Amino acid sequence: MDKYCFGVDLGGTTVKIGLFSIEGQLQDKWEIPTRTENHGAEILSDIAASIQSRMDTGHLSKEQVTGIGIGVPGPVLNENIVQGCVNLGWGNVRVADELSALTGMKVKAANDANVAALGEQWQGGGKGFQNLVMFTLGTGVGGGIIQNGRIISGANGAAGEIGHMVIVDSDEVVGTCGCGHRGCLEQVASATGIVNLTEKKLAECSQDSVLREISPLTAKDVLDAAKAGDALAEQAAENMMKQLGRAAAYIACVVNPDIFVIGGGVSKAGEYLIEGISRYYKDYAFHASADTKFALASLGNDAGMIGAAGMVCTL
Amino acid sequence: MDKYCFGVDLGGTTVKIGLFSIEGQLQDKWEIPTRTENHGAEILSDIAASIQSRMDTGHLSKEQVTGIGIGVPGPVLNENIVQGCVNLGWGNVRVADELSALTGMKVKAANDANVAALGEQWQGGGKGFQNLVMFTLGTGVGGGIIQNGRIISGANGAAGEIGHMVIVDSDEVVGTCGCGHRGCLEQVASATGIVNLTEKKLAECSQDSVLREISPLTAKDVLDAAKAGDALAEQAAENMMKQLGRAAAYIACVVNPDIFVIGGGVSKAGEYLIEGISRYYKDYAFHASADTKFALASLGNDAGMIGAAGMVCTL
Repeated sequence: MDKYCFGVDLGGTTVKIGLFSIEGQLQDKWEIPTRTENHGAEILSDIAASIQSRMDTGHLSKEQVTGIGIGVPGPVLNENIVQGCVNLGWGNVRVADELSALTGMKVKAANDANVAALGEQWQGGGKGFQNLVMFTLGTGVGGGIIQNGRIISGANGAAGEIGHMVIVDSDEVVGTCGCGHRGCLEQVASATGIVNLTEKKLAECSQDSVLREISPLTAKDVLDAAKAGDALAEQAAENMMKQLGRAAAYIACVVNPDIFVIGGGVSKAGEYLIEGISRYYKDYAFHASADTKFALASLGNDAGMIGAAGMVCTL
Repeated sequence: MDKYCFGVDLGGTTVKIGLFSIEGQLQDKWEIPTRTENHGAEILSDIAASIQSRMDTGHLSKEQVTGIGIGVPGPVLNENIVQGCVNLGWGNVRVADELSALTGMKVKAANDANVAALGEQWQGGGKGFQNLVMFTLGTGVGGGIIQNGRIISGANGAAGEIGHMVIVDSDEVVGTCGCGHRGCLEQVASATGIVNLTEKKLAECSQDSVLREISPLTAKDVLDAAKAGDALAEQAAENMMKQLGRAAAYIACVVNPDIFVIGGGVSKAGEYLIEGISRYYKDYAFHASADTKFALASLGNDAGMIGAAGMVCTL
């Protein structure tokens, strides 16, 4: 009898659901809207109904489904309890218990950044390695820590919050981070941070730059200009890659991964980014972990759904 | 039938061996010399003979012994292979396999700083918590990371090398760290680092200080003078505690422990140190992990032996 599992990536707007073979082959994927009204009261029953519907269509019995993994946009304790998701209107919710009661199947829950890291370790840019750290460089900077093929979630579900390492002086960033600090990695290395710091530099100096022609400026503009040799853009990109390399070296002193995987929108800068971050990493890394690999994430927006399935594929 | 295990702390001069009940109660402990001559060829057979002798005396059968845990002063892969121990004259040694062959019992090996962290988590300052990070402040700065009651050793056995986070500018330290970098936490927060930085300050300024009367200066002198209100000593102590607090905040963004445990000779400064480090920690910590606890280590030099036993007590 063939065995399957479901991976669910619960976002603030849509829920992505995938049906996987137990070996991790995607069989089907689809999306449903996330109904955040009424404090998100219908979200889990919508997911349960969608999964049941897919099982009916495919003539799948519960005995054929090993379990359901779900990634949620908030801190998660014990693969079960979400400690508040502002985006969903949720307070504390026993996600795994509730979805299990609704479906009659085993459920494991984890933070969305953490399941994305697990996805990249299981099927993506970090495939073949047991110990991985992922940086997700998007609007913010997220992260996930995988050791021995399992998510490290920490005491409060706050492991992997590597965007909030207060890594530079407060006068080296623009404004205050969403977390309340000044000097977070997120303020230097997120798409928003890159743009803010580049605009500050453009305003403060009169150096020529192709970026002066562009409005509104995006992180992609800055990184494209840097690759093309624009000096001001290069300074901005080097600063960002230096701080990411430094942060990676600190992280390696803690968990010593086999590989760092870089994902999120900013990672579309590709090998340029990998070369830069790993060059600065070597400047700061402890000798025993100086050869840690760096790679690009390869699963894109499916990483969370795939990693969620990965949590339960070996139940 | 009562069950037992052995914990072995293998140091460069002596081997500490303990006999424990499976619940972790110490029954007996003793020491044998570490014979480092001939590339340490006799070390493991000496340990095996000593354990066998204690089993003979106590009429213990192999069936009554769950296993042997051993902490070694070097990086360890897969609870087995030591990747070189300069202090012992060892290259790569399959410690667990070899000691198991010599004794006919199950053996697990780990790095000495890591087993000390496990000891403090199992029976010491971190008892009752599953997720712990230990700082050992001695001649150097060592560390150990425990998640879900297990040692995180990392890809190269270099997890927990938190003394080698390059955390300050090179002009804020004296000389070069043993690892080759300038600016490591170890150069600020080890006993050696505290003395070096205080002596530099004494030489560079003419500020009054009781420390000017003391030669040779020790870290204890500096911390005692700081507690007594000597302004120059206070500046030195505050700088050290600030960098430890910063490092702890970075570490919490990675693994989010329940508790930080502070051990090693410098930790004899006691609650003064805990208060200072945790005060600076709050300045840098991410809000979700801002309430992480800090405590003193309580097992002293027995932490390694106890943690080594802890590795096998539940085999």
